[in-house]
Amino acid sequence: MPLVRVTNFAVSLDGFGAGEPQSLESPFGHAGMKLHQWRFDSWRDGAPDGIDALYGRQYDVGFGAEIMGAHKFGPPGWQDDPDWRGWWGEDPPFHTPTYVLTHHPRPPMEMEGGTTFHFVDASPEEALELARAAAGDLDVRIGGGATTVRTFVAADLVDHLHVPIVPVVLTRGTQLWEGLEGIEERFHIESVVAPSGVIHLSLTRRR
Amino acid sequence: MPLVRVTNFAVSLDGFGAGEPQSLESPFGHAGMKLHQWRFDSWRDGAPDGIDALYGRQYDVGFGAEIMGAHKFGPPGWQDDPDWRGWWGEDPPFHTPTYVLTHHPRPPMEMEGGTTFHFVDASPEEALELARAAAGDLDVRIGGGATTVRTFVAADLVDHLHVPIVPVVLTRGTQLWEGLEGIEERFHIESVVAPSGVIHLSLTRRR
Ligand SMILES: NC(=O)c1ccc[n+]([C@@H]2O[C@H](COP(=O)([O-])OP(=O)(O)OC[C@H]3O[C@@H](n4cnc5c(N)ncnc54)[C@H](OP(=O)(O)O)[C@@H]3O)[C@@H](O)[C@H]2O)c1
Ligand SMILES: NC(=O)c1ccc[n+]([C@@H]2O[C@H](COP(=O)([O-])OP(=O)(O)OC[C@H]3O[C@@H](n4cnc5c(N)ncnc54)[C@H](OP(=O)(O)O)[C@@H]3O)[C@@H](O)[C@H]2O)c1
Repeated sequence: MPLVRVTNFAVSLDGFGAGEPQSLESPFGHAGMKLHQWRFDSWRDGAPDGIDALYGRQYDVGFGAEIMGAHKFGPPGWQDDPDWRGWWGEDPPFHTPTYVLTHHPRPPMEMEGGTTFHFVDASPEEALELARAAAGDLDVRIGGGATTVRTFVAADLVDHLHVPIVPVVLTRGTQLWEGLEGIEERFHIESVVAPSGVIHLSLTRRR
Repeated sequence: MPLVRVTNFAVSLDGFGAGEPQSLESPFGHAGMKLHQWRFDSWRDGAPDGIDALYGRQYDVGFGAEIMGAHKFGPPGWQDDPDWRGWWGEDPPFHTPTYVLTHHPRPPMEMEGGTTFHFVDASPEEALELARAAAGDLDVRIGGGATTVRTFVAADLVDHLHVPIVPVVLTRGTQLWEGLEGIEERFHIESVVAPSGVIHLSLTRRR
């Protein structure tokens, strides 16, 4: 049975998955690259079998579809710009059907490299049904941001999460853990610290 | 030069040092023993040189005085109870002069085992001056709760913090990281994961 997974959803020590305010110039707000720099460093300077690189490389392995929130797809106001095609250029790194949850749907956008963006105004359950059908035997990735991840976890739709905790404090932004009180009762949690200081948390749904 | 240190100040994945509401029956609110169980387990079942035990044992080593907040000393309303002598019985585990920050000071209380509670309505700087004088060549411990720890860190009065992150999510209570945006620029942060799942964070002020 294919799984629903979150990979490389990075948060700060205080649980923020992005800073604020998000804008075209600063997609992550005041967080800048703080939550993501470790991945670039692991490719550039790290051992290819270093722990950061191992996790980083899992980013897109085994997925047949992605679901993301409207605020990951573009900066505030992208819904009013008919030319907005996402942050990632013509060949986005998803390479699968990708479902963008939004209250302002538009026609699908076929990109290069296998990514097609579908814009859906639907419940998490309905969106997941679409994504599962598109993914076939492969897993579905819940790609973020924090609002989308925690909504799917709260609805008990997620089997596994990889959450790298970066040792920085943001104090504001979008919060991953909100509404997830007692998640430790539903998920087995293990973790490992990389030499970079990133703490890789791995949460697996208990059976 | 003696240091100002925080040891074994446990928080949840979302940064709460206690749950809510705090009461005589539930000193940690809805957190129950979740943030502290690992220490008891490390004494009872753990290896004496296991990582949890090593950290747990550092609790009170090298200190000549402690500073704590009013809400650590007692449940809401203790200030109105002239007979309240703290949670810890007649021989509290501090064994040093202990300064309780409160807007309702009362005369000092000499306990057994070397603990004397002094009640002070003073700025963090002034309280620290009293504690330093009492501690002599030894360090001063900032004992919590979260409000007190983050106030002292924000005022740049703390040299080192040991913060065990327990893999549970509380979503409410008293927050350690609030107001500490960018703490990674002032402190070097390292961490290690114990087999219990507790992530021991060690923050050392950069020179
Ligand atoms: N830390 C990481 O690894 C990581 C990963 C991915 C993204 N990010 C960052 O996270 C930030 C975005 O996160 P976020 O939490 O603000 O938002 P988000 O999860 O990307 O998007 C939330 C929004 O999606 C729309 N939406 C969600 N569910 C819906 C539904 N069922 N039906 C219709 N619309 C729905 C709503 O938008 P409207 O109400 O506006 O239509 C909602 O406000 C960005 O800065 C992004 O770059 C970080
Ligand atoms: N996680 C751990 O390892 C750990 C460790 C220790 C304690 N705890 C728990 O943490 C909880 C208490 O934490 P908390 O953050 O709520 O409160 P706290 O830090 O213990 O106390 C804060 C209170 O102390 C008084 N205060 C602080 N600074 C003062 C100053 N400069 N002058 C005068 N009064 C001052 C104020 O009380 P008033 O305004 O009411 O006078 C303030 O509201 C308790 O449940 C405790 O058991 C957890």
